[in-house]
Amino acid sequence: MTQRDFVIRQIAKTNKKNFENYVVTRIYHLMNRTDLKFITQQYVSRPEGHALTDMYFPQLMLHVEIDEPFHEKQIELDINRETDIIQATNHEIHRIEIIEDLDSINKHIEDLVNLMRKKIADLEKNNSWEAWDIEKEFSPDYYKEKGYLDVKENPAFRRIVDACNCLGQNYEGAQRAVYEAKLYPNHYLWFPKFYKNDEWDNRISEDRSTIIVKCKNPTKQEKGFRDDKFYLAKKITFPRSKDNLGNILYRFAGIFETDMVESSIQNGVVHRLKKTRMEL
Amino acid sequence: MTQRDFVIRQIAKTNKKNFENYVVTRIYHLMNRTDLKFITQQYVSRPEGHALTDMYFPQLMLHVEIDEPFHEKQIELDINRETDIIQATNHEIHRIEIIEDLDSINKHIEDLVNLMRKKIADLEKNNSWEAWDIEKEFSPDYYKEKGYLDVKENPAFRRIVDACNCLGQNYEGAQRAVYEAKLYPNHYLWFPKFYKNDEWDNRISEDRSTIIVKCKNPTKQEKGFRDDKFYLAKKITFPRSKDNLGNILYRFAGIFETDMVESSIQNGVVHRLKKTRMEL
Repeated sequence: MTQRDFVIRQIAKTNKKNFENYVVTRIYHLMNRTDLKFITQQYVSRPEGHALTDMYFPQLMLHVEIDEPFHEKQIELDINRETDIIQATNHEIHRIEIIEDLDSINKHIEDLVNLMRKKIADLEKNNSWEAWDIEKEFSPDYYKEKGYLDVKENPAFRRIVDACNCLGQNYEGAQRAVYEAKLYPNHYLWFPKFYKNDEWDNRISEDRSTIIVKCKNPTKQEKGFRDDKFYLAKKITFPRSKDNLGNILYRFAGIFETDMVESSIQNGVVHRLKKTRMEL
Repeated sequence: MTQRDFVIRQIAKTNKKNFENYVVTRIYHLMNRTDLKFITQQYVSRPEGHALTDMYFPQLMLHVEIDEPFHEKQIELDINRETDIIQATNHEIHRIEIIEDLDSINKHIEDLVNLMRKKIADLEKNNSWEAWDIEKEFSPDYYKEKGYLDVKENPAFRRIVDACNCLGQNYEGAQRAVYEAKLYPNHYLWFPKFYKNDEWDNRISEDRSTIIVKCKNPTKQEKGFRDDKFYLAKKITFPRSKDNLGNILYRFAGIFETDMVESSIQNGVVHRLKKTRMEL
């Protein structure tokens, strides 16, 4: 996808929501920089549960909520097991209230735009501003250069092969859900899928700390337990999800270990989040 | 309607048309002045026929066309007899082409915005900039103060009573289609309706210079001819139309005189545009 189409499609998520469209386009156009990424309608995981924010600037870890007080906004959390949900515990949320007076709405937006500009200027001063580059943002090299993956920064890849190669697997292609890690002894790379199908019923907990893998065929589940090399290893985990435009993402969820005490044929196999950061 | 809702509804006309929405909001937000009026999807009458422009700035007599070359834009001229069509013969039209590179699109928009700012600055310098005021723009006093009505400037009223009072009738309310002008001897005020109904089949020509009034009931049409005071007088004419948001407008179409030679029971009564400007 080109940058143009990405931007257009993000804005298009607000079509039919006229006030949202006004605020989102005003913030975007007044910021007036194509190196600033934004996402509309981003699902976030916060201590108080899942929520949807209207406009999200990943580089600034800043969200905008647009409040329409006069008719209670219907927030329908249309979350399924593949919904891309980011960690937003340490993010800022700003609100723009839709009041009657257009000049006052514009003034609030101007204040927010000035605050965002200040944030970017500060990042630039500290050499920690990362310009958005749609060509590079999901590439293995980007994270390799960075030197680590941290759940707090919501790193993600578009393809299994890119995640594999970021971790030194050096593949041409990759489609499997599990790979033994070449560079990390006793680690696997794991790309679990959470959509329900005839055979599997896998889930990740709302706080993203527990994954339960359940096979509907008990014989197969039991057989899986016997082959326990995977269960005893650490799992560098990239659940498959879909972003707000419907594109597949494998977002780093941390390193999981299997809880052999809680796991059973009835409960399924229980995996627990143990580390949220890894050095590359 | 508040200014906020007017602006939001104009932008909302571009929802579902993603590139149009991008360009329209970008121009509007970068211009960043609430005293600048704009209309999206304005029908215009030009020497080469009717057309629809994507964004129209009445104060600047400037239109923006958004060209999407990669999939031939479907312009469906959804014109009916009540469609508000303005005179745009002496207006400027600028084109923004949707090309692949977002920075280049933004550059073209920036050039246009700078040109528009320059135009406003020039008008301000000449004391001829008229700030948009949604409360006053259709009021009788606004035009009275101006001292004239000119088709070129597309003057309009929201209600028959406002047009009447602008011309010195001094009414509390007014609902009729025809009034004898108190201040202008041998003139009528005329508010023709062009939608087809069971009794009438009235039309205005595409170039807005001929109005044909036809009664489907020949007896009534014939009786009308006998009462010829209206036909022999000059008619200050405000056809009823609906603007792009569906609101009723009575837009000054000029002073018409009846062409008694061409008029007949078969043809209907033919009225010809004689003057496009009148002093108040």
